[in-house]
Parts: sequence; structure tokens; C-alpha cells
Amino acid sequence: MSRSLPVIQAGDHLAPPVFEKVAVIGLGLIGGSIALAAREVWPRALVIAVDTRDVLEQAMVRHAIDVAADDPIVAAEADLVVLAAPVRENISILASLADCITGTAVVTDVGSTKRDIVEAAGDLPARLTFVGGHPLAGAARGGLAHARPDLFRDRPWIFTPRGEAPGAAVERLYAFARGLGARPCTLEPVAHDRLLAYLSHLPQLTASALMAIVGNEAGVSGLGLAGRGLVDTTRLASSPPDVWRDITATNGDEIGRALDELIERLRALRADLPRGDSLTDTFGEAAHWRDVLTRDRS
Amino acid sequence: MSRSLPVIQAGDHLAPPVFEKVAVIGLGLIGGSIALAAREVWPRALVIAVDTRDVLEQAMVRHAIDVAADDPIVAAEADLVVLAAPVRENISILASLADCITGTAVVTDVGSTKRDIVEAAGDLPARLTFVGGHPLAGAARGGLAHARPDLFRDRPWIFTPRGEAPGAAVERLYAFARGLGARPCTLEPVAHDRLLAYLSHLPQLTASALMAIVGNEAGVSGLGLAGRGLVDTTRLASSPPDVWRDITATNGDEIGRALDELIERLRALRADLPRGDSLTDTFGEAAHWRDVLTRDRS
Repeated sequence: MSRSLPVIQAGDHLAPPVFEKVAVIGLGLIGGSIALAAREVWPRALVIAVDTRDVLEQAMVRHAIDVAADDPIVAAEADLVVLAAPVRENISILASLADCITGTAVVTDVGSTKRDIVEAAGDLPARLTFVGGHPLAGAARGGLAHARPDLFRDRPWIFTPRGEAPGAAVERLYAFARGLGARPCTLEPVAHDRLLAYLSHLPQLTASALMAIVGNEAGVSGLGLAGRGLVDTTRLASSPPDVWRDITATNGDEIGRALDELIERLRALRADLPRGDSLTDTFGEAAHWRDVLTRDRS
Repeated sequence: MSRSLPVIQAGDHLAPPVFEKVAVIGLGLIGGSIALAAREVWPRALVIAVDTRDVLEQAMVRHAIDVAADDPIVAAEADLVVLAAPVRENISILASLADCITGTAVVTDVGSTKRDIVEAAGDLPARLTFVGGHPLAGAARGGLAHARPDLFRDRPWIFTPRGEAPGAAVERLYAFARGLGARPCTLEPVAHDRLLAYLSHLPQLTASALMAIVGNEAGVSGLGLAGRGLVDTTRLASSPPDVWRDITATNGDEIGRALDELIERLRALRADLPRGDSLTDTFGEAAHWRDVLTRDRS
């Protein structure tokens, strides 16, 4: 693993941290990477972690955190709380935060759907300012073992503030995200959930469905003949189902709409197989958007 | 581009070539790579190319070929003919080969479907021995510009000999494929077309359909927020439609069956979105087969 600092100029570590006490609840790929990056970027900030004892031990070994416990009460004095468990767990932790956090704090999350948690945050007391967040960073495999401090470098980090969210909290979160190397931006929760249904949730379900079907048909010997095309197309197929059950449960309407569109497109291709006119149209659109997608990417 | 020899031990270039005069008809990614590799591995072999004048000029600049013309008649004295145009074009060239090739020769192809061309080859005179072939090598983009001599290294190369094909021709093709760095193997044409419908044709159609739908919804600004998951899942979406119209036209029944299965699986996921039981099953199968697929790959 690289130990290089994600963004820093010489002397930056002397700058005061954006938040003094950062509590990360859930040390998976994203939460673990936030902890690792925050400790590197702001050595003077305290990184508090909440997860199971097993995970916390791994995190201690990796020097990812300063303070650890399996109870959110350890985050009592945090000025930033980052909810980094699966979406529905974040929502249920949110409900108990008012009892754990004693002072004022900014609360954000890193979940892949935003409408439900933003709505649930409406019940928080005024001293806890919630701004939904979603860093668009990932890896082939989840879990703390794959966390790394440069995970967010040059990646978008979407925030979904409610209308009444104080601008100061959003600005501090932008600074926090930038400190971790990300490019922060803002979307409405509804727009976020619709866009991510297409950018992320549909590709995930498609990759998993494809891998299941191809594997069942080809078997071990057949897969031995597979080329890089199948390997790339199914890279997401190792994703953990628990995270994705929460995502589909909280974005079912938008994911359903996206799935309907894909099914309709595949049916059109299927109906037109011998002639291939539909194929020519779809390949033309696909090549155009693929160019757009890969343009300017390293 | 690497100029290193794909497989050679020192002194191997003194070994007699498996074929003395290799005619490659169609200098795209695969045909161009065969020409480049054959010239490197067997400097004493003559590599004859047939394509349009534009393509042949590029090939000359790259020193990929010895003799070039836009008419197959230039291949008259070849002892190996490799058909490397799109599938239906290969079938139509096959019909004219008896008039072009004056002596005995082994004829193979590199197309992604095998049943139609193997059947069409039944009309060849006895002096032309046809053995269908399919090197499972590819790249994100087609065309001679992306051809490279090491394209086949460690890749499977499937041959689909008819029952009456002389073993000697198959053995020479195995030696030819091995010389280019590939791992030759044999399948029945029917088994090949079914397997490839799943390993290659279904992922291609899925990647293109997915990219078209996601691009149409997300647009330029939305795609700017996409992560590596979408980028990998849609890597195949730049593939050229002309090649794929020929593939779907000659393997429509098997591709249709594979598409039906995928559509059915996506519908099951869609119907079960709020609960996610189907998702758990599909993700479990997918993760298992993904492990099998990536095991032992570099």
C-alpha cells in the first residue's frame, strides 16, 4: 500500500484540521479510507472509529485510527460524524445520534442513496447539522483490507444539502473532501438517486446478473476460455450483497425504471437479431457515449 | 508498440516455418496481428495480405507484410489462407477461393461464429482443407492500428475441425497457433457457438445496451461523475457494429437464448427489488463465478 500523502504540499500538515474530532462509524472500504486519509492529511485531528472489535483491531494495526470502540458513545465529542455503514444501518444509527453526541456537530454519510437518509435527518436536533454525502470512489473489493488513503484522489464527492442546511457546514465538508483529494459538488437528493441508479446501481446489477448466467452456462472449463471482455464487464460481480440490498431497498423506484429501460433495449436487440438494425443503432449510441465517458480520463 | 518476439528461443528463427506462404485476407486487429507475429516468428515465411489499398499502405509502413494486393488472386500460391474479415465476408470469400488458390492449401478463419462457415466450407475442392479457427484475443478497439505481434500470447485459439478434416492440417494449425504464442484447443462448431454466445456475444450486447441507456440518461455532465465501475462494465461498448452484425446474424439462435436468460434474470431482480432475496441469490452466484473467472489470471 502506498503511504504517500494524497494531496499535501509541504507544510500543509501544520494547517489546522477542518474538523478536530472526526468520528467514522463503519470502517469498510470507504470509512476506512476516510480514516486513513484524514490521519495523514491532518495529523492533529483525532480520528474516532466505531465498528466491531475485529475490524477495529485491523484498523489499529494499520494505524488508521486514534480512538476506537464498538459503541457510538465514544463519538460523544466529535465535531464531524461520518456514517459509513450500509445505507439502512446509517439511517438507524442516525436516529440514535442525538443521544450519543453531546455538543454541536456536522453529520454526513457516504451512502449510495440519498433520499431516505436526508428525510430521516429531518428529525435531528438543531445542534446536529446533517448534509448527505456520497464519495464516488470504489474498488473491486470492499472492506477495510482494501482501504487506502488515496482512494478519493480526483474522484467526485457529491453532497446533497437540504435547503435549510447552513452554508458554513457545507463549506467545511467541501474543505474536508478537498483535503482528502476529492472534487466536491452538490446535487438534489432526488437528482442524485436518479443519476446513480444509472451510473452505478444499474451497472452493478447487470454485471452480477451477467456473471451468474455466464458462469452457470460455461462452467469452470468454459470460463477458462473467456477473454478480457468478460473479465472487465463483470468486474463489479464480486460486490457484497448486504451493501446492495440496502441500496436497492432505498432506491427501488429509480433502479426499477433503469432496469426496465435496459430490459426493453435487450428485448429490442433480441427481436432484431437476424437483421441487426437495432444493433447498429445501439452500437452507434454506445460508441458515442463511451467516447464521452473515457475522454479526459487517465 | 513492443517489437519483442512473442515466443522465440534464440535460434528458433532458423527453424522452418510451419507454412511457407501465409495469406491473410482482412488486416484488422486479428489479421494484422497474425501478419505481424508470423513475420517476426518465421522471417523466412512469405506473408501475403489482401485488403483495401488504404489498409495495405498502413501495413507496409508497419512492415507487417511482404506482398499486398486488393484482390485475393495474389494469394494463388499460398499454403495457408487465413480469412480475417467479418464472418459473412469470410463465407463469401471462401466461395471464391477455389478459383484463386492454384495448389493445395490449408484454409482457416478467425471469426467469432463457426457453424455457418464450417458448413459453407463443405463445398471446397479436396485440395483446400478447411479447419475453422477462433483466436480468443481482442483489444478495446479494432483495426490494424491496434494490431500487435503479442496479441495471442497465452490466449486460447479454438479450432473446429470437421470429422473428415485430415489430422495433419489440424496439427500444422496447432503448431502455427503455438508459434504465435497461443494455446490451441478443439471444440465442435455447435459447442463453440453456444459457449461463445455466453462468453463473448452476450457481454458485448449487454455492454453496448448499458452504455447507450446510461449515456442517454446521464448525458455529458452526468457521465463526468461516473466511477470506474461503469468504465469497466462498458469497455466493450466501442466495438464496431459491422463485425457484430455478422456475428449476431450467424449465431442468432444461441445469442437469443442467452439474451432471454439475462432478460429473465434482470426481470427477477426487478420484481424483487424491495426485498432483495433474488439479489442475494444472484450476487452469491456471481461472486462464485467471478472467483473462478479471475483465479489464475495475471
